[in-house]
Order: sequence, then structure tokens, then C-alpha cells
Amino acid sequence: MNGKPVAVVGASGYSGEELVRLLLCHPHVELAAVTSRQYAGQTLAQVFPRFAHHTRARTLRFTEPDARLLATQTKLVFLALPHGVAAEYAVPLLEAGCQVIDLSADFRLKSPSVYKEFYGHDHPAPKLLAEAVYGLPEVYRPEIKKASLIASPGCYPTSILLPLIPLLRADAISPDGIIADSLSGVSGAGRKAELDYLFVECNESARPYAVPKHRHLSEIEQELSRAARLPVVIQFTPHLIPINRGILSTLYVSPTQGKSAEDIARIYNDAYGSEPFVRLLGDKALPDTKNVAGTNMIEIAWRRDARTGRLIVMSAEDNLLKGASGQAVQSLNLLSGFAETAGL
Amino acid sequence: MNGKPVAVVGASGYSGEELVRLLLCHPHVELAAVTSRQYAGQTLAQVFPRFAHHTRARTLRFTEPDARLLATQTKLVFLALPHGVAAEYAVPLLEAGCQVIDLSADFRLKSPSVYKEFYGHDHPAPKLLAEAVYGLPEVYRPEIKKASLIASPGCYPTSILLPLIPLLRADAISPDGIIADSLSGVSGAGRKAELDYLFVECNESARPYAVPKHRHLSEIEQELSRAARLPVVIQFTPHLIPINRGILSTLYVSPTQGKSAEDIARIYNDAYGSEPFVRLLGDKALPDTKNVAGTNMIEIAWRRDARTGRLIVMSAEDNLLKGASGQAVQSLNLLSGFAETAGL
Amino acid sequence: MNGKPVAVVGASGYSGEELVRLLLCHPHVELAAVTSRQYAGQTLAQVFPRFAHHTRARTLRFTEPDARLLATQTKLVFLALPHGVAAEYAVPLLEAGCQVIDLSADFRLKSPSVYKEFYGHDHPAPKLLAEAVYGLPEVYRPEIKKASLIASPGCYPTSILLPLIPLLRADAISPDGIIADSLSGVSGAGRKAELDYLFVECNESARPYAVPKHRHLSEIEQELSRAARLPVVIQFTPHLIPINRGILSTLYVSPTQGKSAEDIARIYNDAYGSEPFVRLLGDKALPDTKNVAGTNMIEIAWRRDARTGRLIVMSAEDNLLKGASGQAVQSLNLLSGFAETAGL
Amino acid sequence: MNGKPVAVVGASGYSGEELVRLLLCHPHVELAAVTSRQYAGQTLAQVFPRFAHHTRARTLRFTEPDARLLATQTKLVFLALPHGVAAEYAVPLLEAGCQVIDLSADFRLKSPSVYKEFYGHDHPAPKLLAEAVYGLPEVYRPEIKKASLIASPGCYPTSILLPLIPLLRADAISPDGIIADSLSGVSGAGRKAELDYLFVECNESARPYAVPKHRHLSEIEQELSRAARLPVVIQFTPHLIPINRGILSTLYVSPTQGKSAEDIARIYNDAYGSEPFVRLLGDKALPDTKNVAGTNMIEIAWRRDARTGRLIVMSAEDNLLKGASGQAVQSLNLLSGFAETAGL
Repeated sequence: MNGKPVAVVGASGYSGEELVRLLLCHPHVELAAVTSRQYAGQTLAQVFPRFAHHTRARTLRFTEPDARLLATQTKLVFLALPHGVAAEYAVPLLEAGCQVIDLSADFRLKSPSVYKEFYGHDHPAPKLLAEAVYGLPEVYRPEIKKASLIASPGCYPTSILLPLIPLLRADAISPDGIIADSLSGVSGAGRKAELDYLFVECNESARPYAVPKHRHLSEIEQELSRAARLPVVIQFTPHLIPINRGILSTLYVSPTQGKSAEDIARIYNDAYGSEPFVRLLGDKALPDTKNVAGTNMIEIAWRRDARTGRLIVMSAEDNLLKGASGQAVQSLNLLSGFAETAGL
Repeated sequence: MNGKPVAVVGASGYSGEELVRLLLCHPHVELAAVTSRQYAGQTLAQVFPRFAHHTRARTLRFTEPDARLLATQTKLVFLALPHGVAAEYAVPLLEAGCQVIDLSADFRLKSPSVYKEFYGHDHPAPKLLAEAVYGLPEVYRPEIKKASLIASPGCYPTSILLPLIPLLRADAISPDGIIADSLSGVSGAGRKAELDYLFVECNESARPYAVPKHRHLSEIEQELSRAARLPVVIQFTPHLIPINRGILSTLYVSPTQGKSAEDIARIYNDAYGSEPFVRLLGDKALPDTKNVAGTNMIEIAWRRDARTGRLIVMSAEDNLLKGASGQAVQSLNLLSGFAETAGL
Repeated sequence: MNGKPVAVVGASGYSGEELVRLLLCHPHVELAAVTSRQYAGQTLAQVFPRFAHHTRARTLRFTEPDARLLATQTKLVFLALPHGVAAEYAVPLLEAGCQVIDLSADFRLKSPSVYKEFYGHDHPAPKLLAEAVYGLPEVYRPEIKKASLIASPGCYPTSILLPLIPLLRADAISPDGIIADSLSGVSGAGRKAELDYLFVECNESARPYAVPKHRHLSEIEQELSRAARLPVVIQFTPHLIPINRGILSTLYVSPTQGKSAEDIARIYNDAYGSEPFVRLLGDKALPDTKNVAGTNMIEIAWRRDARTGRLIVMSAEDNLLKGASGQAVQSLNLLSGFAETAGL
Repeated sequence: MNGKPVAVVGASGYSGEELVRLLLCHPHVELAAVTSRQYAGQTLAQVFPRFAHHTRARTLRFTEPDARLLATQTKLVFLALPHGVAAEYAVPLLEAGCQVIDLSADFRLKSPSVYKEFYGHDHPAPKLLAEAVYGLPEVYRPEIKKASLIASPGCYPTSILLPLIPLLRADAISPDGIIADSLSGVSGAGRKAELDYLFVECNESARPYAVPKHRHLSEIEQELSRAARLPVVIQFTPHLIPINRGILSTLYVSPTQGKSAEDIARIYNDAYGSEPFVRLLGDKALPDTKNVAGTNMIEIAWRRDARTGRLIVMSAEDNLLKGASGQAVQSLNLLSGFAETAGL
């Protein structure tokens, strides 16, 4: 083994595949195990031909997921499982002394009752909710460094939280009346054999969905409320557009009195000026998903509209990287004492 | 000639091409002339191979645009010219007794000063602004029937005005704080050889543009103000997404007190229940550009969000049809006493 | 009823949907029944929102497929069913006196043994194979006019047969060594919830499949052999590319001695010069799927290569129209004594 | 400077941009200069926002191309210029002692008369043709290691030559009657503001072009002839399809007598079994551009068709990487004594 051994549980979806790609190339990590019920017995290279030039991908075989066995192979496990399934693996892994980075929504909420409201059933391991750290490195870097359970944020929340949190923390915008209008590439729906996500159904199509109460609202509002230090309720409309990767969010907010464009720029520079994965476009350019696709960057631009008094903030990220697997590797790096940009 | 002779000036752009297609198939119309500086001398079939199975397309040749000559060939002329060029053709055509349906923005504004604010120069024929009828049939049907100059609305305005006008007329929503977030297919940018619209620059790209003050705001606000009977200022953010055709608009508004979802539904049914080109989806479905592409329909859906108190209205249309050429043919039908749906 | 009553069995796939669209707009036809196990009880408008502006689509409900019942409602039935399923409906419908236009491959082959070789099982109704007419109107127009069972050709065969049959009939090319290299849009794979046809798997992907022995080779070779009056074996490679609709076929053949480019042009003009749905591009242009999408046209171009002595023939068609439903309606028109272009 | 200084002349096209990306990430190289008439004075980060997270991209400014000045900054220059322009820079750079890796077609042909036949004018520096090494590392590795001028092959040639050269060298296929049918993504056309490459003209379009005599035939035939040791003339048909990146080539050849599928497999394994950038799929899978996009790999699969006796060989590569910039960096690594896979 040339590096820290890590495992990926549920490596057959789009986020899991991207995570495997990052870990195969990571300079300080060795992929010790990958699991998938569907592909157990096959090598990584057989399932994902695009990885076949990695020696490790030609020898490493998918196994059935087995928490006890995994705990003998590694002390750090990524869960790239559907929502609701991650919790059952997290509990035994944590008990066996592993650190867990969960890419699902299972541990992102602090409140079991909010979880029940948005997910429709009781949380299977409510005690872990307090323990879990929301894995947004730009916001919770110190907490991530010493976490045992990281709830890595999803693609929509990341694209909305990173632009809004500094403004709310600085009381530069009103916590009322926030609107987030987001566009997502189709990989955000996961690798699911459903008619809605067929090529012919998505190509030449633009459509809203889950209006008005998408599940991810719960974690977005939780984190905005923390930043604002009072309860925040927002409007959120996700749309599906025919690109493979990318989230573009357009955010409509009201600056608090006296806050000029310069104030906004200063707040962003203070918050993110030295962040390796945040690109502040200011008022010079506008974000474009193609400029972040394949990278762990988030682009943020803003405009103050003198006619309406509003501030429009726009962000772009790759939903599978900064919105999922890239961010999870960023947390791995923090946890492990590696350079935060290693392998990204 | 088997039908009313009509001409298209500037038939080489996407809207012009689509208009020609509709007119070639129209049961009561004969395409008498098409003009294009670039293609003068060539037949329609040579320039647009997809029309070659129409006999007329194999014989009709593009000519240089010449208003006096056109006025001898037809009494109804469509102008499918770039903004700023249409006015110079409209004046002599009107003087020669032709009716003019203009697809550009040149005659959509009532106020010369608003025109100057948004277009950067004085209007070349300000007297005609009062005379021109804004060609939105669902709103100005009686006026269109007797107009000599029709300013046919563009794609963004149509997608925003049709959903909002009935609500403002009924005082069912506040005229303040309206936000329109729109997604457009690339044909909306016209057939222009610019790097920004190359396949590789648009494919796998989602991006906002013209933030915060797009030119079409001027006509949108003019018409919303008429409906509300007081000045309306809105927020409008257009985005470019990789589809050929289609506009999807998501509109955020605040219902006035006491207005329930049922009230909204009743207002829409009263306004559009018997309109042939408006499909009210209500709360049963959400719009999708692929369901209107190639048709003159606009789909409208809405949701009342109990959490925020807002009403979200969503619309989808084909930007080249209901958002341009189809709507212009709808006006032609009204003007000419044909069935409004003829050829559509 | 305003027109000849017809029914569509299996109207939920892409070809079935397109067939329904054509029949809803057809001037001489009334859609009497549509069947679908999956959608039984729902109206056409509910299942296909894009048809909702047709009055008939708002009242006509899908029923369970029942041959006896159908035979009381109509004497002409289209079968838009998966291969292998059509035969079981065709038999009782024919016995009940209906004419049947089958869009599947079930009745396209004349030889039960070739059927078994390519489809892997005995033909369920081998007697009908002799009776069925191969529904390529440009080739079998007289036979179609008096057929009771029409086997409407598929998309790949149409794109290959129409260009090659006239050349083989005229002995202008060698029947040996023919290569057909074809590109298909994803709708050709049908509306199937399979991972291979997800947006993310098809977008940014070009791939061959079913190499070297695709099932449709059997009907292609049968018809080429008839034209050549001796057994023809060809090479055929289909590819999947990220477009919704369209087939582009590039055909490599060897002209027989003395056949010049002018000879080829004359043969094509004799064969197709007055065909309403064939556009001969000759050596002036090259085919493009976007120029035939949404139409029943096939474009054919050719080039003689002095360097290699070969003739390259290229064709483009819409796989759902000339390659499926449009062609079936063309046969309906012939069968029924309507103008061949009615509703197309 | 942390690494070998290199320069890129003409870095504003798609290949140039991709080359810059690779060089910014290369572990042993320092980007010393980039030139572009159009962008002179701007930083790399300003022109290509996606590179802005590289420190070097924020400081390095485009300069006007000036061979003498470049020769003072670096001894290795990449030319990513349009065909016909590269030669004028290569001559002074070579005279000033630089090594040159040219991505254009200017130095790929050995014969000035073939150059004139295919490019329509005399070669500007015919003496250099003999000196230049055709930069296909899998074929000319020893020559590349000591070259001063490398003519890096283009995307179509690479996708055709790598599959065919081993078979011709081994006399396993006939040199007669070879057909290459290729599909290219739109980035292959370059970053040119032309109507043909607009999104709306390419999306939903598949079309052949340059039939039957594409310019790149000249280098393909030159290299196939070398491998076969006799003159080879092939048929080549390029097609444009709506993907950003990727070439898929389907090759039709005739195995020489007695050559079985096993013989073919053995020849490929001998030639490429240990090549880091060739993935032999054999008869187990088929190539797909999405499996090579973003990598320097070429996938090769083959099928022997018992019905026709032919061998079908299929390849997939990223046209900007293995088909352009990746291959050029592979040559840089060989020239410089770096690991051949460094930075790839």
C-alpha cells in the first residue's frame, strides 16, 4: 500500500464513480476497497472502462458491502449510497472505529423532526445527528479536521450556501425573501434507469421539478439560519437542463440598508479571497458551468441592480465535484492532514 | 396565386426561416416575395434545403429588399430584421398602403424616451410608436384586427407577460417585487457567426447574461404597467442553455391578501380557458420546453407555497413560434379574418 | 366521425407517439382507438401533454389491447408494438377482416428460416409471411395499394434500401462488397428505461453497437437480393449518436464498369425524380439529419471517387417518420386511396 | 522557474487551450510564454477563466508571437497555429536552436508534391520536410527522442493509423480497399466564428463533409504506405456529430488469407500490449468516445465477420488529447527524457 487506505461503499453511481476517479489519482491515498451489490466480483476496470489505465483499477474488485470486513481494511470509509441507506452502514463503521464521510443527506440535518418533515420517516440513528459535521470546508474547516462523521453537502446546497453564508453572517442582506433559482445537469438525478432521465426525454428539454418543496431545502435553511442567527425560510426552484454536469444558481436577495456593491465585494474577499476552490468573479464576468466542469471550483459573481435595489448573486459548480465527490475529498484532506488541494 | 399574397423581409435568420416555413404551409396565404441581401438571387430551396419539397420554395427567389417594389407585390409585409433596421422599411411600406407585422423590437415601446434609455439612440420614427399595436393576441385581439402596424412581441416578453397580465389585471398579485428568471435556447440569439454561440461554447454550458438590465425589460415593464395600472419595475435574469428552441420562465410573485390557489386558477381559466394556444397545467403538471417545441402553444403552471406565501408561475413556449413567428402568423390571421389557428 | 376510423395498438413508444401525432392531424382520418397496457384508462392528452390542444386527444382514452373489440371499431389497425408481440395481434385482426399496418419487424422477412436465424425462435405465423407486403412505397407502391398486411420497414433498412435498390436494379453497382455505415439518434432505441439510454450515458458519446450482425441485416439483405436478382450479403455497422432523431447512412459501393457519375444521376432521377418524399442532392450538397428532422423526406447524395473508383452514397431521414411512422402513414394513404402526401 | 521552460505559439484555439491546460499541470515543465495576436496583453486567466486557479495563469500574459524573443525564453516551442502559418515560425525558431513541436499539418508530409496536391500551393520550407519526425510515439518513439522538429499528427490520422499500422506491418490485412468512416466532435473544427459551427446548426445534426478527398488523407496514406511498404490508397469519410470532443473511427479491412481473430489479437498485443495510452478492447467491448474524453487514451476493438470475411476495427480517442495536445505532450516527454506519461 502506497498511501492511506480508504474505501468507497456504493461506488456504482455517478458520484461514487467520480469519487473513485479522484481517489485513484490521489497522491496520498490507496483505494483499499470498493463495494457494490450490483457489481460484486467485477474489477473496477470492467465496470468503468475509462479507469482501465490505472493499475489499481485492473486488480481491485467490487465486494458486497460488509461494514465489519471494511473496518479491517481501512479506517476511513466514504458512503456514496442513496439517501436512507447510508445510516445503516455508518453506525457499525463508526462503532468499529472508522471515520465516515457520507455523501448522502442522511446526517446533514441537526433536527430529527425536520428530518421527519422532509424525508417522511423517523431518522434511523438520531443520536449521530449531533455528532455529524456538515462538511462544507469553507465554513466548517476546524470542525471537519477533527470529525469522525462528516455529512458532505449536496450539489444544490453547496451552490446556494457558499454565496449566501458570508452575506448573512455579515448582516449584509435581509434573511427574508431570499429566492434561489437553480439549474442542474442530469447527472444530479443519479444513475437511475427511469424514463424521465432518458436521453430523448432530457435533450431539448428544460423543466422545473419538485416545486415548491424540494428535500434539500431543509439543509439549506438549517445552514442559512445558522449564518443569520435566526430562522430563515427561502424559496427554491430546481430545474433540469440538458447538460451532463453542472449547477448554476441565481440568487435574489435584498441588501440591508447602506450596503454598497463595494461592501459586498469586501465581504466576499474577506471570506473567500484565499480559498483555493472559490473563484470570485465580482462584477467583471458571469459564471458558466463549462468553466468549472471537471474541477472542484465554485464561481461566484454578483450584481447590484439600481433599478430594483436587489442584489443578484450567481454561482456555478460541477455538481459531481464541488457539489459531491470533490468536496468529500477536500474533507478527507482536512481530516488526514494532507494539503487541502491534494488530488484535486 | 392561391391565397393572400404576403412578403417576408429579412428571411435569413432563425425567426425568418421559421416564418417562411409557416407561410409555405399556410392554407390561405401565398408567399409572394422574400428578401435577403445575403441570399438575393437564390431560391428558397437553395438556401433552406429543408423546404425543397415545397413547389413554391423551388421557384421563389430571394430579392434585395426594396419597399416600393414590395408594395406592388403584396399589401402585407412581415419584417424579420435586426432591431434598429426594421423602422426604415416600415415607414415606406406603410406609406405605400401595406400592413406591416414587425418581429423586431422597433415598435414595441410607446415612449420614445424609454426607447432611448434602453436602445441608446433616438427612435427613427417616433410618430409610429403611438400607432403600433403590441401584437399579443390573447391581450390585444380587438386592436390587432384593425391594426396597420403590429409590433409582434419577442420570446422573453411573451413568456412573462401571458402568465402575469391576468393576475395584475385582477389585482391578484402585488405589482412590487416581481422576479422573472428565464432560460432560453440558443436560437434566441439569432443566426450570428459569433464565438459565444458556437456549439462547443454552448454545449455543456449554462450561463446568465445581460444581468441586470436586458433590453426587453422595457417592453415587459410597459405591458405589466398597463395591466397593473401603475408603474411596474421587475427583476429579470435571462440564461442561455444548450437547447435549440424553447423559453422556460419561472416567475416569483406575491399574491394579494386573501387570494387562494383557487382564485388564481379561476383567474387563469377566465382569461385563457378558451384560448387555442394557451395550455393551463394548473397544479397537475409542470411545463417542459419539449412539450411545446414545434408548436405555437404556451404552457402555464403555478404553485402557491404555503411556507413562503409566494406564488410561483412557470411557463414554457417555443421561442421561434409563440415567441416570434407563430405569434406573428396568429396576428396575420386576425388581421386577415382567417381562423386564428390557420396554418398553426 | 369525420374520416376513416383507424386504431393504433401500442401507442406509448416513440414511434407510436409520432404515429398518433400524424393521425391526429391527418385530414381524412379519425383516430378511433389507441391501446396501451401501461396507460389504459388515461386520455391521450394526459399521457402526451403536447397533444392536449387536439380536441380528440382530450377525449380519447387508452384501452387495453383487445383485437376483437378493435375490429368492431375500425377496419384499419396500426401495430406499434415491440418485435415478437405484433404477430399475436395481427392474426385475429386479419381474421376479423381488418387491414393491418405493422411497424415491427415481425412480417418483414419472407423466409421463416432466415427469421429463425436472426430472431432466435420460430416465426409464430409463418403463413402470413408470404402474404405480407414490404411497405416501402417507392419500391412496392402497387402491392401496397391492395395489401391486407403491410410490414412497414424500419429506420436503418429504409435509409439503406432507398439509395441502393435503384442502383442494383440497374446493375450499376456490384452486389458484392457493399458496406453500410449508419448513425442513429437515440429515439431509435425506443422508450425503454435502460441505463444505456440515459441522458448522461448518451450525451457526449458516440459508439458502435451490434457489430457485426444486427437483426435488421436480414431484411436489408432480403430486399437488396430481390433488387439484384441474386443473393447479396452486406457489411452493416450501426452507431448511436446524441441526437433525438435522425439516421445518417454512408454507403460504400463499387460501380460496374463504364458507369459514370452521370449514369448514376440518371438512374436516381428515373427512380425518384417525381417521388414526393425523396430529395436528390446529387453532387451539389450533402445530407444532414437536421434538414429532414420532423419531415417524411429522405435526402440522398452521392460522390464518385476517382482515386478509389468507389461510389459513396449518403442518405438522411427522420428515423421516426420516413423510418417508421411517416412511412406507415404513406402506406395508409396508398391503401385508402388518399393523396399519398395527405397528412404528411 | 520550476521546470523546463516551454512556450506555446497560438494558444487561443481549442488545441492550444488544451495544451496550455496540460502544461500548467505538468510536473516537470514551466510555461514560459504564450502568444496570441488576438489576446496579447491579457493574462491566461483573463482569456480562460477555467485556468484562473493556477497561479501561473494569473501572471502569465499573452504576447505577440516573435520567434527571436521566444528563442531567448525557451528552447522548446509548441506551435498550435492554423495550417500554413506554422512553417513561418518554425524556420526562425529552429535556426535559433529551439526544438519545435508543431500541431499543424505543415510538416507531416514527406513529399512536397503531395503537399501541393492536397494543400494547393508550394510548401514554404520544403527542406524541413525530410528533417521532421511524424510524432506518433507508438510508431516513431526512437526518432521522436532525438528530433528537433516534430510534426504531431492530427485527430483523424491518429484514430486511423494506430489501429491499421500494426496490421499492415504484419501483412495481416490487404493494403487494398481500406475504408475509414469517422465521426468527429465539433471542437475538431476549431474555434472559428462560422455559421456552420453554431450550436443550432450542429445540435441535432449529423452530416458528412469533405467527401471524398479530405486533406488529411495525404498524411494517412503516407503513413499507411510506409507500414505496408507499398502505395496505399484509402477511402475516408469524415462526419460531424454533436459532441464537444471525440473521434470515433470505424475501419473496414480484409484480412489476408489464413489470418484468424487470434492472429489479429496477437498482433495487437505485440504492438500495444504495454503501451500506456492504448486500450485494447478486443472482442469484449466496443469503443465509446465518452470513455476516452478528457484522457490521452485510444481505445481499439475489432470483430471478424464470418459472413463477409471482413475485419472491422473501431477506435475512439479524444480529438484534443490523443488526437492533438496530449500526443504533443507525449512527444515532449520523450524528447525531454521525462516519463512518457508525465502530466498526462
